[in-house]
Amino acid sequence: MHFADRLAHAVKATNSITCVGLDPRKDQLPAPLRESVSVDSPDAWAAAYTQFCNEIIDVVAGKVPCVKPQAAFFEQLGPAGMVALGEVIQHARRANLIVITDGKRNDIGSTATAYADGYLGHESPWGGDSLTVSPYLGRDSLEPFVEVCDRRLAGIFVLVKTSNPGGGLLQDRQTDGQTVYQRVAELVTELNANRIADCGYGPVGSVVGATYPEQLAAMRAAMKTSWILVPGFGAQGGNADDVKVALDEKGLGAVVNNSRHIIFAHARKQYAGRFGDARWQEAVAAAVAEMNDQLRP
Amino acid sequence: MHFADRLAHAVKATNSITCVGLDPRKDQLPAPLRESVSVDSPDAWAAAYTQFCNEIIDVVAGKVPCVKPQAAFFEQLGPAGMVALGEVIQHARRANLIVITDGKRNDIGSTATAYADGYLGHESPWGGDSLTVSPYLGRDSLEPFVEVCDRRLAGIFVLVKTSNPGGGLLQDRQTDGQTVYQRVAELVTELNANRIADCGYGPVGSVVGATYPEQLAAMRAAMKTSWILVPGFGAQGGNADDVKVALDEKGLGAVVNNSRHIIFAHARKQYAGRFGDARWQEAVAAAVAEMNDQLRP
Repeated sequence: MHFADRLAHAVKATNSITCVGLDPRKDQLPAPLRESVSVDSPDAWAAAYTQFCNEIIDVVAGKVPCVKPQAAFFEQLGPAGMVALGEVIQHARRANLIVITDGKRNDIGSTATAYADGYLGHESPWGGDSLTVSPYLGRDSLEPFVEVCDRRLAGIFVLVKTSNPGGGLLQDRQTDGQTVYQRVAELVTELNANRIADCGYGPVGSVVGATYPEQLAAMRAAMKTSWILVPGFGAQGGNADDVKVALDEKGLGAVVNNSRHIIFAHARKQYAGRFGDARWQEAVAAAVAEMNDQLRP
Repeated sequence: MHFADRLAHAVKATNSITCVGLDPRKDQLPAPLRESVSVDSPDAWAAAYTQFCNEIIDVVAGKVPCVKPQAAFFEQLGPAGMVALGEVIQHARRANLIVITDGKRNDIGSTATAYADGYLGHESPWGGDSLTVSPYLGRDSLEPFVEVCDRRLAGIFVLVKTSNPGGGLLQDRQTDGQTVYQRVAELVTELNANRIADCGYGPVGSVVGATYPEQLAAMRAAMKTSWILVPGFGAQGGNADDVKVALDEKGLGAVVNNSRHIIFAHARKQYAGRFGDARWQEAVAAAVAEMNDQLRP
Protein backbone atom coordinates (compact mmCIF):
# COMPACT_ATOMS: atom_id res chain seq x y z
CA MET A 1 0.00 0.00 0.00
CA HIS A 2 1.23 3.53 -0.78
CA PHE A 3 2.68 5.46 2.15
CA ALA A 4 -0.06 8.10 2.02
CA ASP A 5 -2.75 5.41 2.16
CA ARG A 6 -0.99 3.56 4.98
CA LEU A 7 -0.96 6.76 6.98
CA ALA A 8 -4.64 7.47 6.21
CA HIS A 9 -5.51 3.93 7.22
CA ALA A 10 -3.57 4.25 10.49
CA VAL A 11 -5.27 7.56 11.34
CA LYS A 12 -8.71 6.01 10.78
CA ALA A 13 -7.89 2.78 12.62
CA THR A 14 -6.66 4.61 15.72
CA ASN A 15 -9.05 7.55 15.43
CA SER A 16 -6.04 9.69 16.20
CA ILE A 17 -3.82 12.24 14.46
CA THR A 18 -1.20 12.19 17.20
CA CYS A 19 2.41 11.52 16.29
CA VAL A 20 4.56 10.61 19.27
CA GLY A 21 8.04 12.09 19.02
CA LEU A 22 10.77 9.80 20.35
CA ASP A 23 13.38 12.27 21.62
CA PRO A 24 15.36 10.50 24.33
CA ARG A 25 17.52 12.79 26.46
CA LYS A 26 19.80 11.56 29.20
CA ASP A 27 18.78 14.02 31.91
CA GLN A 28 15.04 13.68 31.31
CA LEU A 29 14.71 9.91 31.33
CA PRO A 30 12.54 8.56 34.16
CA ALA A 31 14.64 7.80 37.24
CA PRO A 32 14.46 3.98 36.92
CA LEU A 33 15.98 4.17 33.44
CA ARG A 34 18.55 6.80 34.36
CA GLU A 35 19.58 4.70 37.33
CA SER A 36 19.88 1.58 35.15
CA VAL A 37 22.90 3.24 33.52
CA SER A 38 25.63 2.14 35.90
CA VAL A 39 28.57 3.08 33.66
CA ASP A 40 28.48 6.40 31.81
CA SER A 41 29.22 4.90 28.38
CA PRO A 42 27.52 5.36 25.00
CA ASP A 43 26.57 1.67 24.97
CA ALA A 44 24.88 1.92 28.36
CA TRP A 45 22.95 5.06 27.41
CA ALA A 46 22.02 3.55 24.07
CA ALA A 47 20.54 0.54 25.88
CA ALA A 48 18.55 2.89 28.12
CA TYR A 49 17.31 4.86 25.09
CA THR A 50 16.22 1.66 23.37
CA GLN A 51 14.34 0.46 26.42
CA PHE A 52 12.75 3.88 26.95
CA CYS A 53 11.56 4.22 23.35
CA ASN A 54 10.45 0.62 23.02
CA GLU A 55 8.37 0.85 26.18
CA ILE A 56 6.76 4.04 24.87
CA ILE A 57 6.03 2.23 21.62
CA ASP A 58 4.37 -0.60 23.56
CA VAL A 59 2.20 1.95 25.39
CA VAL A 60 1.11 3.97 22.35
CA ALA A 61 0.72 1.17 19.78
CA GLY A 62 -2.87 1.01 18.58
CA LYS A 63 -3.60 4.42 20.09
CA VAL A 64 -1.75 6.65 17.61
CA PRO A 65 -0.94 6.22 13.91
CA CYS A 66 2.74 7.06 13.98
CA VAL A 67 5.93 7.76 15.88
CA LYS A 68 8.78 10.10 14.99
CA PRO A 69 12.21 9.11 16.29
CA GLN A 70 14.49 12.15 16.31
CA ALA A 71 17.80 10.99 14.81
CA ALA A 72 19.80 13.76 16.52
CA PHE A 73 19.38 12.35 20.01
CA PHE A 74 20.54 8.93 18.90
CA GLU A 75 23.44 10.37 16.90
CA GLN A 76 24.46 12.35 19.97
CA LEU A 77 25.59 9.04 21.48
CA GLY A 78 27.75 8.17 18.48
CA PRO A 79 27.60 4.82 16.65
CA ALA A 80 26.03 3.04 19.65
CA GLY A 81 23.11 5.47 19.45
CA MET A 82 22.59 4.74 15.78
CA VAL A 83 22.37 1.03 16.51
CA ALA A 84 19.68 1.93 19.08
CA LEU A 85 17.85 4.04 16.48
CA GLY A 86 17.69 1.02 14.19
CA GLU A 87 16.32 -1.15 16.98
CA VAL A 88 13.68 1.42 17.91
CA ILE A 89 12.51 1.75 14.29
CA GLN A 90 12.22 -2.02 14.01
CA HIS A 91 10.28 -2.23 17.27
CA ALA A 92 7.83 0.45 16.09
CA ARG A 93 7.36 -1.39 12.81
CA ARG A 94 6.57 -4.63 14.60
CA ALA A 95 3.97 -2.69 16.61
CA ASN A 96 2.34 -1.57 13.34
CA LEU A 97 3.21 2.06 13.85
CA ILE A 98 4.12 4.23 10.88
CA VAL A 99 7.67 5.48 11.40
CA ILE A 100 8.69 9.02 10.44
CA THR A 101 12.45 9.16 10.91
CA ASP A 102 13.25 12.76 11.73
CA GLY A 103 16.66 13.33 10.19
CA LYS A 104 16.14 16.48 8.08
CA ARG A 105 18.59 14.95 5.63
CA ASN A 106 19.54 16.65 2.39
CA ASP A 107 22.18 16.43 -0.29
CA ILE A 108 22.50 16.39 -4.05
CA GLY A 109 22.22 13.72 -6.72
CA SER A 110 23.52 10.29 -5.89
CA THR A 111 24.28 11.37 -2.32
CA ALA A 112 20.59 12.14 -1.77
CA THR A 113 19.84 8.73 -3.25
CA ALA A 114 22.15 7.17 -0.65
CA TYR A 115 20.18 8.77 2.19
CA ALA A 116 16.90 7.71 0.59
CA ASP A 117 18.16 4.19 0.05
CA GLY A 118 19.25 3.98 3.69
CA TYR A 119 16.15 5.34 5.36
CA LEU A 120 13.12 4.85 3.14
CA GLY A 121 10.95 1.78 3.15
CA HIS A 122 10.61 -1.41 5.10
CA GLU A 123 13.30 -3.15 3.09
CA SER A 124 15.85 -0.39 3.76
CA PRO A 125 18.57 -0.91 6.38
CA TRP A 126 16.94 1.51 8.84
CA GLY A 127 13.51 0.34 7.80
CA GLY A 128 11.34 3.39 8.48
CA ASP A 129 8.31 4.43 6.42
CA SER A 130 9.37 8.01 5.83
CA LEU A 131 12.05 10.63 6.46
CA THR A 132 12.06 14.38 7.02
CA VAL A 133 14.18 16.28 4.48
CA SER A 134 15.41 19.85 4.03
CA PRO A 135 14.81 21.74 0.74
CA TYR A 136 17.66 24.28 0.68
CA LEU A 137 19.46 22.47 -2.16
CA GLY A 138 16.48 22.69 -4.49
CA ARG A 139 14.29 20.45 -6.57
CA ASP A 140 17.01 18.13 -7.86
CA SER A 141 17.97 17.36 -4.25
CA LEU A 142 14.42 16.17 -3.50
CA GLU A 143 13.75 14.18 -6.66
CA PRO A 144 16.12 11.32 -5.71
CA PHE A 145 14.15 10.90 -2.49
CA VAL A 146 10.84 10.89 -4.38
CA GLU A 147 12.13 8.30 -6.82
CA VAL A 148 12.99 5.98 -3.95
CA CYS A 149 9.55 6.69 -2.44
CA ASP A 150 8.03 5.45 -5.69
CA ARG A 151 9.98 2.21 -5.63
CA ARG A 152 9.57 1.51 -1.91
CA LEU A 153 6.06 2.89 -1.29
CA ALA A 154 7.65 5.25 1.20
CA GLY A 155 7.22 8.94 2.00
CA ILE A 156 9.15 12.10 2.82
CA PHE A 157 8.23 15.23 4.76
CA VAL A 158 9.83 18.36 3.33
CA LEU A 159 10.56 21.26 5.70
CA VAL A 160 8.29 24.08 4.52
CA LYS A 161 7.66 26.44 7.43
CA THR A 162 9.28 25.66 10.75
CA SER A 163 8.11 26.45 14.25
CA ASN A 164 11.24 28.12 15.63
CA PRO A 165 11.38 31.90 16.19
CA GLY A 166 14.18 32.35 13.66
CA GLY A 167 12.59 30.20 10.97
CA GLY A 168 11.47 33.27 9.08
CA LEU A 169 14.97 34.57 8.36
CA LEU A 170 15.10 32.72 5.06
CA GLN A 171 11.66 31.11 4.85
CA ASP A 172 9.68 34.38 4.96
CA ARG A 173 11.73 36.28 2.39
CA GLN A 174 9.50 37.44 -0.46
CA THR A 175 10.23 37.57 -4.15
CA ASP A 176 7.46 38.94 -6.38
CA GLY A 177 4.96 38.43 -3.57
CA GLN A 178 5.88 34.79 -2.93
CA THR A 179 7.83 33.76 0.15
CA VAL A 180 10.51 31.09 0.11
CA TYR A 181 8.28 28.75 2.10
CA GLN A 182 5.40 29.30 -0.33
CA ARG A 183 7.77 28.35 -3.16
CA VAL A 184 8.71 25.19 -1.29
CA ALA A 185 5.00 24.42 -0.80
CA GLU A 186 4.51 24.79 -4.55
CA LEU A 187 7.43 22.44 -5.13
CA VAL A 188 5.87 19.88 -2.78
CA THR A 189 2.66 19.98 -4.83
CA GLU A 190 4.63 19.71 -8.08
CA LEU A 191 6.46 16.64 -6.80
CA ASN A 192 3.19 14.96 -5.79
CA ALA A 193 1.65 15.40 -9.25
CA ASN A 194 0.85 12.00 -10.81
CA ARG A 195 1.68 10.34 -7.53
CA ILE A 196 -1.65 10.68 -5.72
CA ALA A 197 -2.77 7.60 -3.78
CA ASP A 198 -6.37 6.52 -3.10
CA CYS A 199 -6.68 8.75 -0.03
CA GLY A 200 -6.03 11.86 -2.14
CA TYR A 201 -2.50 12.46 -0.93
CA GLY A 202 0.92 11.78 -2.41
CA PRO A 203 4.21 10.54 -0.96
CA VAL A 204 5.64 14.06 -0.50
CA GLY A 205 4.52 15.35 2.87
CA SER A 206 5.49 18.64 4.43
CA VAL A 207 6.46 20.09 7.80
CA VAL A 208 4.57 23.21 8.88
CA GLY A 209 4.86 24.44 12.45
CA ALA A 210 1.86 24.93 14.75
CA THR A 211 3.09 28.27 16.03
CA TYR A 212 1.76 30.10 12.97
CA PRO A 213 -1.93 29.01 12.67
CA GLU A 214 -2.79 31.39 9.81
CA GLN A 215 0.14 30.11 7.81
CA LEU A 216 -0.80 26.53 8.65
CA ALA A 217 -4.32 27.09 7.26
CA ALA A 218 -2.88 28.76 4.17
CA MET A 219 -0.45 25.87 3.67
CA ARG A 220 -3.33 23.36 3.98
CA ALA A 221 -5.06 25.21 1.17
CA ALA A 222 -1.89 25.52 -0.91
CA MET A 223 -0.77 21.88 -0.65
CA LYS A 224 -3.96 19.89 -1.19
CA THR A 225 -2.08 16.65 -1.86
CA SER A 226 0.47 16.75 0.95
CA TRP A 227 0.27 15.16 4.37
CA ILE A 228 1.34 17.83 6.83
CA LEU A 229 3.47 16.93 9.84
CA VAL A 230 2.78 19.61 12.42
CA PRO A 231 5.41 20.10 15.12
CA GLY A 232 5.14 22.70 17.84
CA PHE A 233 2.10 21.35 19.67
CA GLY A 234 2.32 21.21 23.45
CA ALA A 235 5.76 22.07 24.72
CA GLN A 236 6.35 24.50 21.86
CA GLY A 237 3.10 26.40 22.41
CA GLY A 238 0.53 25.44 19.76
CA ASN A 239 -2.96 24.41 20.94
CA ALA A 240 -5.64 22.11 19.50
CA ASP A 241 -7.57 24.77 17.59
CA ASP A 242 -4.33 26.02 16.09
CA VAL A 243 -3.51 22.67 14.57
CA LYS A 244 -6.94 21.41 13.47
CA VAL A 245 -6.81 23.85 10.57
CA ALA A 246 -4.29 21.49 8.99
CA LEU A 247 -6.95 18.79 8.54
CA ASP A 248 -9.13 18.32 5.49
CA GLU A 249 -12.91 17.91 5.67
CA LYS A 250 -12.51 14.15 6.26
CA GLY A 251 -10.22 14.68 9.22
CA LEU A 252 -7.21 13.50 7.24
CA GLY A 253 -4.14 15.21 5.83
CA ALA A 254 -2.23 16.05 8.98
CA VAL A 255 -0.55 14.43 11.95
CA VAL A 256 0.46 16.48 14.94
CA ASN A 257 3.69 15.73 16.72
CA ASN A 258 4.28 15.97 20.43
CA SER A 259 7.49 14.78 21.98
CA ARG A 260 8.30 16.12 25.42
CA HIS A 261 4.76 16.46 26.80
CA ILE A 262 4.11 12.80 26.08
CA ILE A 263 7.39 10.96 26.55
CA PHE A 264 8.40 12.95 29.62
CA ALA A 265 4.83 13.21 30.97
CA HIS A 266 6.00 11.76 34.29
CA ALA A 267 7.66 15.12 34.99
CA ARG A 268 4.62 17.27 34.13
CA LYS A 269 2.88 18.81 37.10
CA GLN A 270 -0.48 17.18 36.32
CA TYR A 271 1.00 13.67 36.17
CA ALA A 272 4.02 13.83 38.48
CA GLY A 273 2.02 13.30 41.66
CA ARG A 274 -0.24 10.63 40.21
CA PHE A 275 2.41 8.50 38.52
CA GLY A 276 5.87 9.96 39.04
CA ASP A 277 9.01 8.37 37.71
CA ALA A 278 8.20 4.86 38.91
CA ARG A 279 5.03 4.60 36.82
CA TRP A 280 6.22 6.72 33.92
CA GLN A 281 4.62 4.45 31.33
CA GLU A 282 1.18 5.21 32.79
CA ALA A 283 1.95 8.91 32.55
CA VAL A 284 2.74 8.40 28.85
CA ALA A 285 -0.56 6.58 28.38
CA ALA A 286 -2.49 9.36 30.13
CA ALA A 287 -0.75 12.09 28.12
CA VAL A 288 -1.48 10.32 24.83
CA ALA A 289 -5.15 9.88 25.80
CA GLU A 290 -5.33 13.56 26.71
CA MET A 291 -3.79 14.68 23.41
CA ASN A 292 -6.02 12.35 21.40
CA ASP A 293 -9.07 13.82 23.18
CA GLN A 294 -7.95 17.38 22.51
CA LEU A 295 -7.47 16.70 18.81
CA ARG A 296 -10.72 14.83 18.17
CA PRO A 297 -13.34 16.94 16.39
CA MET B 1 44.11 25.47 18.97
CA HIS B 2 41.02 26.98 17.33
CA PHE B 3 39.60 25.04 14.40
CA ALA B 4 40.31 27.83 11.92
CA ASP B 5 43.95 27.96 13.02
CA ARG B 6 44.31 24.17 12.92
CA LEU B 7 43.06 24.21 9.34
CA ALA B 8 45.41 27.08 8.40
CA HIS B 9 48.29 25.21 9.99
CA ALA B 10 47.43 22.02 8.11
CA VAL B 11 47.22 23.86 4.79
CA LYS B 12 50.66 25.40 5.35
CA ALA B 13 52.23 22.18 6.61
CA THR B 14 51.05 20.17 3.60
CA ASN B 15 51.31 23.05 1.09
CA SER B 16 47.93 21.84 -0.14
CA ILE B 17 44.32 23.04 -0.19
CA THR B 18 42.99 19.66 -1.30
CA CYS B 19 40.22 18.04 0.72
CA VAL B 20 39.78 14.36 -0.05
CA GLY B 21 36.12 13.35 -0.03
CA LEU B 22 35.54 9.87 1.41
CA ASP B 23 32.44 8.71 -0.49
CA PRO B 24 32.52 4.91 -0.53
CA ARG B 25 30.12 3.30 -2.99
CA LYS B 26 29.69 -0.44 -3.35
CA ASP B 27 29.88 -0.66 -7.13
CA GLN B 28 32.90 1.63 -7.47
CA LEU B 29 35.21 0.06 -4.91
CA PRO B 30 38.41 -1.37 -6.40
CA ALA B 31 37.95 -5.01 -7.35
CA PRO B 32 40.08 -6.46 -4.50
CA LEU B 33 37.85 -4.74 -1.94
CA ARG B 34 34.60 -5.58 -3.74
CA GLU B 35 35.70 -9.19 -3.93
CA SER B 36 36.58 -9.26 -0.23
CA VAL B 37 32.85 -8.99 0.46
CA SER B 38 31.88 -12.64 0.36
CA VAL B 39 28.46 -12.24 1.96
CA ASP B 40 26.22 -9.35 0.82
CA SER B 41 25.56 -8.03 4.33
CA PRO B 42 25.78 -4.53 5.82
CA ASP B 43 28.52 -5.70 8.18
CA ALA B 44 30.63 -7.05 5.32
CA TRP B 45 30.23 -3.89 3.24
CA ALA B 46 30.91 -1.73 6.28
CA ALA B 47 34.19 -3.57 6.80
CA ALA B 48 35.10 -3.00 3.14
CA TYR B 49 34.23 0.72 3.45
CA THR B 50 36.38 1.04 6.56
CA GLN B 51 39.33 -0.63 4.89
CA PHE B 52 38.89 1.43 1.72
CA CYS B 53 38.70 4.76 3.56
CA ASN B 54 41.47 3.93 6.03
CA GLU B 55 43.84 2.95 3.23
CA ILE B 56 43.04 6.22 1.44
CA ILE B 57 43.77 8.06 4.67
CA ASP B 58 47.12 6.29 4.94
CA VAL B 59 47.96 7.36 1.39
CA VAL B 60 46.94 11.01 1.68
CA ALA B 61 48.09 11.74 5.25
CA GLY B 62 50.73 14.46 5.22
CA LYS B 63 49.86 15.37 1.63
CA VAL B 64 46.54 17.13 2.18
CA PRO B 65 45.15 19.09 5.14
CA CYS B 66 41.76 17.43 5.47
CA VAL B 67 39.34 14.69 4.54
CA LYS B 68 35.57 14.85 4.23
CA PRO B 69 33.70 11.63 4.95
CA GLN B 70 30.22 11.79 3.39
CA ALA B 71 27.82 10.49 6.05
CA ALA B 72 25.16 9.50 3.51
CA PHE B 73 27.17 6.62 2.07
CA PHE B 74 27.81 5.20 5.51
CA GLU B 75 24.20 5.69 6.59
CA GLN B 76 23.10 3.89 3.43
CA LEU B 77 24.38 0.69 5.05
CA GLY B 78 22.36 1.23 8.22
CA PRO B 79 23.81 1.05 11.74
CA ALA B 80 26.81 -1.02 10.59
CA GLY B 81 27.78 1.81 8.27
CA MET B 82 27.63 4.34 11.08
CA VAL B 83 30.02 2.24 13.13
CA ALA B 84 32.34 2.31 10.10
CA LEU B 85 32.00 6.10 9.87
CA GLY B 86 33.15 6.40 13.46
CA GLU B 87 36.16 4.18 12.78
CA VAL B 88 37.12 6.16 9.68
CA ILE B 89 36.92 9.48 11.53
CA GLN B 90 39.13 8.09 14.30
CA HIS B 91 41.65 6.76 11.78
CA ALA B 92 41.84 10.14 10.05
CA ARG B 93 42.37 11.86 13.39
CA ARG B 94 45.21 9.52 14.28
CA ALA B 95 46.77 10.41 10.90
CA ASN B 96 46.61 14.12 11.85
CA LEU B 97 44.08 14.95 9.18
CA ILE B 98 41.40 17.56 9.87
CA VAL B 99 38.01 15.84 9.57
CA ILE B 100 35.03 17.61 7.99
CA THR B 101 32.08 15.30 8.56
CA ASP B 102 29.69 15.95 5.68
CA GLY B 103 26.25 15.44 7.18
CA LYS B 104 24.43 18.66 6.22
CA ARG B 105 22.64 18.36 9.57
CA ASN B 106 20.12 20.89 10.77
CA ASP B 107 17.43 21.24 13.39
CA ILE B 108 16.23 23.69 15.99
CA GLY B 109 17.20 24.49 19.56
CA SER B 110 18.23 21.61 21.77
CA THR B 111 17.97 19.19 18.83
CA ALA B 112 20.64 21.16 16.96
CA THR B 113 22.70 21.03 20.15
CA ALA B 114 22.38 17.23 20.12
CA TYR B 115 23.83 17.04 16.60
CA ALA B 116 26.60 19.47 17.56
CA ASP B 117 27.37 17.52 20.72
CA GLY B 118 27.55 14.29 18.74
CA TYR B 119 29.73 15.42 15.86
CA LEU B 120 31.84 18.41 16.88
CA GLY B 121 35.23 18.17 18.47
CA HIS B 122 37.75 15.50 19.33
CA GLU B 123 36.00 14.64 22.60
CA SER B 124 32.64 14.07 20.87
CA PRO B 125 31.45 10.50 20.20
CA TRP B 126 32.09 10.78 16.46
CA GLY B 127 35.19 12.84 17.07
CA GLY B 128 35.44 14.94 13.91
CA ASP B 129 36.76 18.51 13.77
CA SER B 130 33.82 19.99 11.93
CA LEU B 131 30.44 19.31 10.36
CA THR B 132 28.54 20.64 7.35
CA VAL B 133 25.15 22.16 8.25
CA SER B 134 22.10 23.45 6.35
CA PRO B 135 20.73 26.96 7.05
CA TYR B 136 17.04 26.64 6.05
CA LEU B 137 15.84 26.80 9.67
CA GLY B 138 17.50 30.17 10.29
CA ARG B 139 19.93 31.78 12.68
CA ASP B 140 18.66 30.12 15.86
CA SER B 141 19.26 26.72 14.26
CA LEU B 142 22.93 27.56 13.67
CA GLU B 143 23.71 29.24 16.99
CA PRO B 144 23.62 25.96 18.98
CA PHE B 145 26.27 24.58 16.63
CA VAL B 146 28.42 27.69 17.03
CA GLU B 147 28.17 27.52 20.81
CA VAL B 148 29.48 23.97 20.76
CA CYS B 149 32.24 25.10 18.35
CA ASP B 150 33.29 27.64 20.99
CA ARG B 151 33.50 25.04 23.74
CA ARG B 152 35.17 22.33 21.67
CA LEU B 153 37.37 24.45 19.37
CA ALA B 154 35.48 22.90 16.47
CA GLY B 155 34.03 24.27 13.24
CA ILE B 156 31.00 24.13 10.97
CA PHE B 157 30.55 24.70 7.25
CA VAL B 158 27.20 26.28 6.41
CA LEU B 159 25.68 25.57 3.00
CA VAL B 160 25.65 28.92 1.22
CA LYS B 161 25.63 28.32 -2.54
CA THR B 162 25.63 24.75 -3.78
CA SER B 163 27.04 23.29 -6.96
CA ASN B 164 23.98 21.38 -8.23
CA PRO B 165 21.98 22.66 -11.22
CA GLY B 166 18.83 23.13 -9.13
CA GLY B 167 20.58 24.89 -6.25
CA GLY B 168 19.31 28.24 -7.43
CA LEU B 169 15.62 27.46 -6.97
CA LEU B 170 15.66 28.84 -3.43
CA GLN B 171 19.23 30.11 -3.08
CA ASP B 172 19.05 32.60 -5.96
CA ARG B 173 15.71 34.18 -5.06
CA GLN B 174 16.14 37.91 -4.57
CA THR B 175 14.52 40.18 -2.02
CA ASP B 176 15.42 43.88 -2.23
CA GLY B 177 18.41 43.01 -4.39
CA GLN B 178 19.82 40.40 -2.01
CA THR B 179 19.62 36.71 -2.81
CA VAL B 180 18.91 34.04 -0.21
CA TYR B 181 22.49 32.77 -0.46
CA GLN B 182 23.84 36.30 0.01
CA ARG B 183 21.74 36.56 3.18
CA VAL B 184 23.19 33.28 4.39
CA ALA B 185 26.69 34.59 3.64
CA GLU B 186 25.90 37.66 5.74
CA LEU B 187 24.70 35.40 8.54
CA VAL B 188 27.94 33.41 8.38
CA THR B 189 29.90 36.64 8.82
CA GLU B 190 27.63 37.73 11.68
CA LEU B 191 28.17 34.42 13.47
CA ASN B 192 31.96 34.71 13.12
CA ALA B 193 32.05 38.17 14.71
CA ASN B 194 34.12 38.15 17.93
CA ARG B 195 35.22 34.61 17.13
CA ILE B 196 38.17 35.33 14.83
CA ALA B 197 41.24 33.14 15.41
CA ASP B 198 44.88 34.12 14.78
CA CYS B 199 44.70 33.16 11.09
CA GLY B 200 41.96 35.73 10.48
CA TYR B 201 39.13 33.23 10.17
CA GLY B 202 36.38 32.10 12.53
CA PRO B 203 34.79 28.73 13.29
CA VAL B 204 31.88 29.26 10.88
CA GLY B 205 32.95 28.10 7.47
CA SER B 206 30.80 27.99 4.36
CA VAL B 207 30.13 25.77 1.36
CA VAL B 208 30.23 27.47 -2.03
CA GLY B 209 30.25 25.38 -5.20
CA ALA B 210 32.99 25.61 -7.83
CA THR B 211 30.54 25.57 -10.72
CA TYR B 212 29.79 29.29 -10.30
CA PRO B 213 33.25 30.98 -10.31
CA GLU B 214 31.92 34.58 -10.31
CA GLN B 215 29.75 33.80 -7.31
CA LEU B 216 32.65 32.07 -5.60
CA ALA B 217 34.79 35.20 -6.01
CA ALA B 218 31.93 37.36 -4.74
CA MET B 219 31.44 35.08 -1.76
CA ARG B 220 35.18 35.25 -0.96
CA ALA B 221 34.82 39.02 -0.83
CA ALA B 222 31.57 38.90 1.16
CA MET B 223 32.72 36.45 3.83
CA LYS B 224 36.19 37.64 4.76
CA THR B 225 36.28 35.60 7.97
CA SER B 226 34.93 32.28 6.69
CA TRP B 227 36.86 29.26 5.50
CA ILE B 228 35.18 28.18 2.27
CA LEU B 229 34.76 24.50 1.45
CA VAL B 230 34.53 24.29 -2.32
CA PRO B 231 32.87 21.19 -3.77
CA GLY B 232 32.39 20.64 -7.48
CA PHE B 233 36.04 20.36 -8.52
CA GLY B 234 36.94 17.51 -10.86
CA ALA B 235 34.07 15.16 -11.42
CA GLN B 236 31.53 17.97 -11.10
CA GLY B 237 33.22 20.22 -13.62
CA GLY B 238 35.10 23.04 -11.85
CA ASN B 239 38.74 23.64 -12.82
CA ALA B 240 41.76 25.04 -10.94
CA ASP B 241 41.36 28.66 -12.05
CA ASP B 242 37.69 28.52 -11.09
CA VAL B 243 38.47 27.60 -7.50
CA LYS B 244 41.60 29.65 -6.80
CA VAL B 245 39.43 32.76 -6.54
CA ALA B 246 38.27 31.39 -3.19
CA LEU B 247 41.74 31.92 -1.68
CA ASP B 248 42.93 35.04 0.11
CA GLU B 249 46.22 36.77 -0.71
CA LYS B 250 48.08 34.41 1.65
CA GLY B 251 46.74 31.32 -0.11
CA LEU B 252 44.48 30.53 2.83
CA GLY B 253 40.72 30.65 3.35
CA ALA B 254 39.57 27.78 1.17
CA VAL B 255 39.87 24.05 0.77
CA VAL B 256 38.75 22.34 -2.38
CA ASN B 257 37.03 18.99 -2.21
CA ASN B 258 37.41 16.18 -4.67
CA SER B 259 35.88 12.79 -4.03
CA ARG B 260 35.43 10.56 -7.04
CA HIS B 261 38.44 11.66 -9.11
CA ILE B 262 40.74 10.83 -6.22
CA ILE B 263 39.24 7.89 -4.38
CA PHE B 264 38.17 6.08 -7.55
CA ALA B 265 41.24 7.20 -9.56
CA HIS B 266 41.96 3.56 -10.43
CA ALA B 267 39.00 3.71 -12.83
CA ARG B 268 40.03 6.95 -14.55
CA LYS B 269 41.37 6.52 -18.06
CA GLN B 270 44.73 8.14 -17.27
CA TYR B 271 45.41 5.82 -14.31
CA ALA B 272 43.53 2.62 -15.17
CA GLY B 273 46.25 1.25 -17.43
CA ARG B 274 49.11 2.27 -15.16
CA PHE B 275 47.68 1.02 -11.87
CA GLY B 276 44.27 -0.56 -12.34
CA ASP B 277 42.28 -2.05 -9.52
CA ALA B 278 45.14 -4.08 -8.05
CA ARG B 279 47.26 -0.99 -7.31
CA TRP B 280 44.40 1.38 -6.59
CA GLN B 281 46.24 3.02 -3.68
CA GLU B 282 48.97 4.20 -6.08
CA ALA B 283 46.28 5.66 -8.32
CA VAL B 284 44.95 7.60 -5.31
CA ALA B 285 48.46 8.89 -4.57
CA ALA B 286 48.95 9.97 -8.19
CA ALA B 287 45.55 11.70 -8.32
CA VAL B 288 46.23 13.61 -5.09
CA ALA B 289 49.65 14.71 -6.37
CA GLU B 290 48.02 15.86 -9.62
CA MET B 291 45.33 17.86 -7.81
CA ASN B 292 47.86 19.41 -5.44
CA ASP B 293 49.96 20.50 -8.44
CA GLN B 294 46.96 22.00 -10.20
CA LEU B 295 45.98 24.02 -7.16
CA ARG B 296 49.42 25.38 -6.25
CA PRO B 297 49.93 29.01 -7.24
